Amino acid sequence: MTFRVGLLGRGTVGAAFSELLEERAPTIEAAIGQRPEISGVLTRSEGDFDEVVAGSDLVVELIGGVEPAREYILGAMAAGKHVVTANKAVLSQHSEEIYEAARAAGVQLRFEAAVGGVVPVIRVIHETLAAAHIDRVHGIVNGTTNFILSEMTRTGASYDEALAEAQELGYAEADPSEDVSGRDAAAKMAIIARLAFGVPINLDEVPYEGIEHLTADDIAYAKELGLSLKLVGTAERLDGGISVRVYPAFLYGAHPLASVGGSFNAVTIESPAITEITLSGPGAGGPQTASAVLGDVISAMIPPPTLPAPAVPQPLVTDVVSAFYLHLEVADRPGVLAQIAEILGLQEVSVKSVVQKGLGDDARLEMVLHPVLESKFKAAVGLIARLEFMRSAPRFVRVIEETFEESP
Amino acid sequence: MTFRVGLLGRGTVGAAFSELLEERAPTIEAAIGQRPEISGVLTRSEGDFDEVVAGSDLVVELIGGVEPAREYILGAMAAGKHVVTANKAVLSQHSEEIYEAARAAGVQLRFEAAVGGVVPVIRVIHETLAAAHIDRVHGIVNGTTNFILSEMTRTGASYDEALAEAQELGYAEADPSEDVSGRDAAAKMAIIARLAFGVPINLDEVPYEGIEHLTADDIAYAKELGLSLKLVGTAERLDGGISVRVYPAFLYGAHPLASVGGSFNAVTIESPAITEITLSGPGAGGPQTASAVLGDVISAMIPPPTLPAPAVPQPLVTDVVSAFYLHLEVADRPGVLAQIAEILGLQEVSVKSVVQKGLGDDARLEMVLHPVLESKFKAAVGLIARLEFMRSAPRFVRVIEETFEESP
Repeated sequence: MTFRVGLLGRGTVGAAFSELLEERAPTIEAAIGQRPEISGVLTRSEGDFDEVVAGSDLVVELIGGVEPAREYILGAMAAGKHVVTANKAVLSQHSEEIYEAARAAGVQLRFEAAVGGVVPVIRVIHETLAAAHIDRVHGIVNGTTNFILSEMTRTGASYDEALAEAQELGYAEADPSEDVSGRDAAAKMAIIARLAFGVPINLDEVPYEGIEHLTADDIAYAKELGLSLKLVGTAERLDGGISVRVYPAFLYGAHPLASVGGSFNAVTIESPAITEITLSGPGAGGPQTASAVLGDVISAMIPPPTLPAPAVPQPLVTDVVSAFYLHLEVADRPGVLAQIAEILGLQEVSVKSVVQKGLGDDARLEMVLHPVLESKFKAAVGLIARLEFMRSAPRFVRVIEETFEESP
Repeated sequence: MTFRVGLLGRGTVGAAFSELLEERAPTIEAAIGQRPEISGVLTRSEGDFDEVVAGSDLVVELIGGVEPAREYILGAMAAGKHVVTANKAVLSQHSEEIYEAARAAGVQLRFEAAVGGVVPVIRVIHETLAAAHIDRVHGIVNGTTNFILSEMTRTGASYDEALAEAQELGYAEADPSEDVSGRDAAAKMAIIARLAFGVPINLDEVPYEGIEHLTADDIAYAKELGLSLKLVGTAERLDGGISVRVYPAFLYGAHPLASVGGSFNAVTIESPAITEITLSGPGAGGPQTASAVLGDVISAMIPPPTLPAPAVPQPLVTDVVSAFYLHLEVADRPGVLAQIAEILGLQEVSVKSVVQKGLGDDARLEMVLHPVLESKFKAAVGLIARLEFMRSAPRFVRVIEETFEESP
């Protein structure tokens, strides 16, 4: 069975979404019995809106901006089609009209990709925390500004230098004003606040400050004080009502958002029942946004399966590759390191770094080893343990490297 | 309309769940039109299993352990009831039998609370990443061991001292062996691997190492090298199949799990389309687990609403409380700090710390101020800016403190 997806807009995200949909269609069909396919496309130069809508079960809106996106979203819903959108501008300025139209038409409206890059903040607020009383959401919801501030921190660059670098690497637009002014983050915080608190919030009501006025000095002071400088969006309940705002802030080192670097996004949700949950991941890029859109399409195709699909047996690998830290206590005499290095080399264990420290007649070797099959490493350690100059049993711990290089 | 919840087990989590359910019932009823209520309870000393099941629409299993929990879960499903469970032991050892029984009976089975404390790892893998190809999951999924390792790092305590402290504070059981041996984490990783890869995995097949043998020395070396020591669970696809395992590991500072301290849990999910998502939050305590159970109950009551509920207007607060960093450049002469302090005091702005640095004839004051209404702070800054000894305009940045004290 085919599930027809009408696509409005085919820019970077639209193209990535088409590609990802095609790649994953067989897996989706195997899991839920329907195969999604692009049934029509509308771009500035081709396609007809009414035809695309008529030929689809669900419409994906990736045009961006307020008009004609608003008109298209309302039109698709009026025609009884589900809508998935990544459009923060229209949702932050016309939320009540759009939510009400979806309710009236009895169709689904999903918009995970409008907020937070790959971070599933909408789903977590809406489903995991459906019954929770949310007190506050703090978010780093703009990857461009987080990249610029991270670069200023890392290299001591000025705002202008870091912005130029972000533009060169594709993290910032030629006209970066939506991002650096805080307006993009304000739109996302308006959408989050609407969901978290159930109150109508328009982008116009969210005060925002940007990062253009920040200097390398500010960052240097932050470092001195053990603080990180971030562009933070806050939505919180206060005694007299609620507050939603965006502003640069220093964060203490132990705050869960303090260590979010590069172009990453992250959101911390606070609620008495759960204390807090933090979600983090890369900010919006074409493939990441496309993945969030596809997740929404699948959720709209069918209520989420509540059971894992039947299991498929696969071999369990027992000998895996790891990096290791190795700690040896040895007699301090010539030739010791050479013998150890020879044994490691014979087992194809390669040394990344080694520090030797004298301890009277003895010495301590602290080594970090490059990734190697565990069986080889353990064979080497077994041989080393039997060397007559060893003063105690070798000790080792596996080492995990960064999964992802956050900044170039 | 009433939605009847049968409760099996009323220990710490069961009692917290009953309380939370009662507290949130009106909100849930307002949102989805059904009011959940506890329709029957089975404990060791009271209640009858068949009666509890017959009188309920959904059964919450909080007994723990394999038997009779397995028998009760299968019995409830055979009677056509949805099941929500927090039981990692039974799911990691009888997953295929239980999943198959749920599928055969056409009922929902939900188990967010069995893994990862409040961190919604099951929902994110199962729904957000439904179409993603997951390559690897790294997790810190045992709060007890993370607390012990964090304390050893923070204070230099030995393993035995940190364990004793964890027991005193209620983070570790009197018999801590399930936690410190890595077995609890192994059960959780088996459940995660089953979901992420769709392959049958039994707890027996997951090799695990614990933290009992780690010394304060290991932690000291880790610190020297800029590494953090964590008990890590890994589930990953490899060339020859998959690998699931639990082991202590050093993490480089930039790894998203490296900064997860105290009794927190966190999971990093890697997939080509999204790069990675990290989810973190407090490990399982009674209220946290109860909140995860309630989230599952609500999801089972009704497919998740895809639309925000109608909005309720609430006042937007425009003058909020913040802490501030204030940077002043002033002439270096007597009485300057006193005048500034007087103005701050008149506006009820209280100083947390101040550093004064000489710059020839001038001086720089760097102050961190306690939380205060922004209007008061800005009034004070306006007055300070007009003082004749000021050498440049005052600069300020808001300061955000830790949201949650991770370790006592």
